[in-house]
Amino acid sequence: MAVIVNLEEERERARKSALEALQRLVGDDLKAVNTLIIQHMQSPVALIPQLAGHIIAAGGKRLRPMLTLAAARLCGYRGERHTGLAAAVEFIHTATLLHDDVVDESALRRGLATANAVWGNKPSVLVGDFLFSRAFQLMVADGSLKVLEILSGASAVIAEGEVLQLVTSNDTATSEQAYLEVIRCKTAALFAAACQVGAVVADRPKIEEEALASYGLNLGIAFQLIDDMLDYSARQAELGKTVGDDFRDGKITLPVVLAFRRGDMGERDFWRRTLEEQTQKDGDLEHAIELMERHGALKDTIARASHYGSIARDALGIFADGPEKRTLLEVIDFCIERAF
Amino acid sequence: MAVIVNLEEERERARKSALEALQRLVGDDLKAVNTLIIQHMQSPVALIPQLAGHIIAAGGKRLRPMLTLAAARLCGYRGERHTGLAAAVEFIHTATLLHDDVVDESALRRGLATANAVWGNKPSVLVGDFLFSRAFQLMVADGSLKVLEILSGASAVIAEGEVLQLVTSNDTATSEQAYLEVIRCKTAALFAAACQVGAVVADRPKIEEEALASYGLNLGIAFQLIDDMLDYSARQAELGKTVGDDFRDGKITLPVVLAFRRGDMGERDFWRRTLEEQTQKDGDLEHAIELMERHGALKDTIARASHYGSIARDALGIFADGPEKRTLLEVIDFCIERAF
Repeated sequence: MAVIVNLEEERERARKSALEALQRLVGDDLKAVNTLIIQHMQSPVALIPQLAGHIIAAGGKRLRPMLTLAAARLCGYRGERHTGLAAAVEFIHTATLLHDDVVDESALRRGLATANAVWGNKPSVLVGDFLFSRAFQLMVADGSLKVLEILSGASAVIAEGEVLQLVTSNDTATSEQAYLEVIRCKTAALFAAACQVGAVVADRPKIEEEALASYGLNLGIAFQLIDDMLDYSARQAELGKTVGDDFRDGKITLPVVLAFRRGDMGERDFWRRTLEEQTQKDGDLEHAIELMERHGALKDTIARASHYGSIARDALGIFADGPEKRTLLEVIDFCIERAF
Repeated sequence: MAVIVNLEEERERARKSALEALQRLVGDDLKAVNTLIIQHMQSPVALIPQLAGHIIAAGGKRLRPMLTLAAARLCGYRGERHTGLAAAVEFIHTATLLHDDVVDESALRRGLATANAVWGNKPSVLVGDFLFSRAFQLMVADGSLKVLEILSGASAVIAEGEVLQLVTSNDTATSEQAYLEVIRCKTAALFAAACQVGAVVADRPKIEEEALASYGLNLGIAFQLIDDMLDYSARQAELGKTVGDDFRDGKITLPVVLAFRRGDMGERDFWRRTLEEQTQKDGDLEHAIELMERHGALKDTIARASHYGSIARDALGIFADGPEKRTLLEVIDFCIERAF
């Protein structure tokens, strides 16, 4: 038992240290980004900074803007433009979260009440629009049309992914391929753009731009796969974190896709009842987790994530070794080791 | 009676001809804009063009993109860039309408079911985001950072105006000044940007850019004032058009601001009950219209609109006479004469 605890502690330390290494690497730049975020969410309409401040302060990891900062440094960039673009990336992400929570009718995010739960859906929709506009203002102030092209393209793809997710929602016939397309659009596209922008700002050749875009895309897919796995993780439940949100919403994520396909007729009826018909009763979530574990659906979701993590790792192969590269490689481990 | 009918017919003809003159002026360009709109609302996610097509086909006047087209021609522009920017302007407007209808929980727009009424709020929010991203992609393809600055700035101001409207909603203490600030942001800012962009694309000096921005801003204010007046117009009711939407939503528009201020204690209690407490019963809308007419609130809303129309008219003074200028002046008349 003591061994298990020590193992757990060690894992927790490893997880933390990967993210902390990234934070250390981009430390001062991240402070500048946070200052820009606070400045640019201001408005004479008081509700805007109130609501935006609520979600921005809610303690996101700032993973996406840190990726922009680290990618720029990896490319040898020594200027300050990357901070404005990192802030733009975080604003796009925050706008998406606000609209997501409205669409999902979520009441909690990271254990805190969502903006829509506190202020209602209406201001969440409108403040999302405001932050999205502010993101573009930050990019325009930077002045790179190429960056604008990358991030406006990513924004359109994110919206497409969100609609696609809505359409496939509650549909147990969703294939792994269709699910992958959803997460590629709704999550990985912004990771890819955030990283690619780092190479663009450093004015690096196409090969480095594409390498960073590929790193970001595959990292983003791995990140989302683990996120979706954690929603059914008994380990998460033990730690007191929320599980089962996706189950209650009838979202079709990879653990469901795999368990559905590997199950028998009776099990498929269970998935149809709970996710398609949304008829859920006490014990259903526990039974869902049991079925997933029985069929190795959670374990194999992690295996799939590791696969994308490997692609992300190889994408960075063209860059010289150094603290930036090492840290970005550790971020892959962080994204996947959250699973344990 | 026959005289009245003839007068009505004549008015209707005058109204129509002002808009038709604008349509004739920009005819081929507008066709190009419509083609761009159809092209750029496409997506492999079928629900996106379905929903976007519903609101785009619902027969908007295309007033804003036509203003961009006409402003560019007024400035002597002979290229084709203005069509892409006009399409971007219409996409920003459409995205705003989609989110507006969600926020207002509207069931009808221009007599047709709203997208949120047909497909629900969720896809309306997300397709709005998609169209907004597409607007920026169109601007990025055009390549003018100045245009991007103007339209991203306008987008942020629109969102601020929408939040401001939400905050002042149901508050009978709203002053005329506060109301003006709402409509300047939520409506007039896009009219201003749409017109200004015409001068930018033609590479005209600052004086022409500002003249067109001022024309658009004041035209937009006049347009919104008349829109708000029409929601209480007995004439509209006679024509079988919807009235009373703002009243039912408890929106504080200028007719209410004026009637509230000019009324006695009992009348103010009426406005508080119906708009603040939202306790409405049969006959309340008719009583509201009666109070507005008694205090000249509708007539004076038109007078205020005429004031802004005059500013818009004078703003065009620096431009040489010609069909473009004549048509843009007629648009002012169109916006105000809708009132009769």
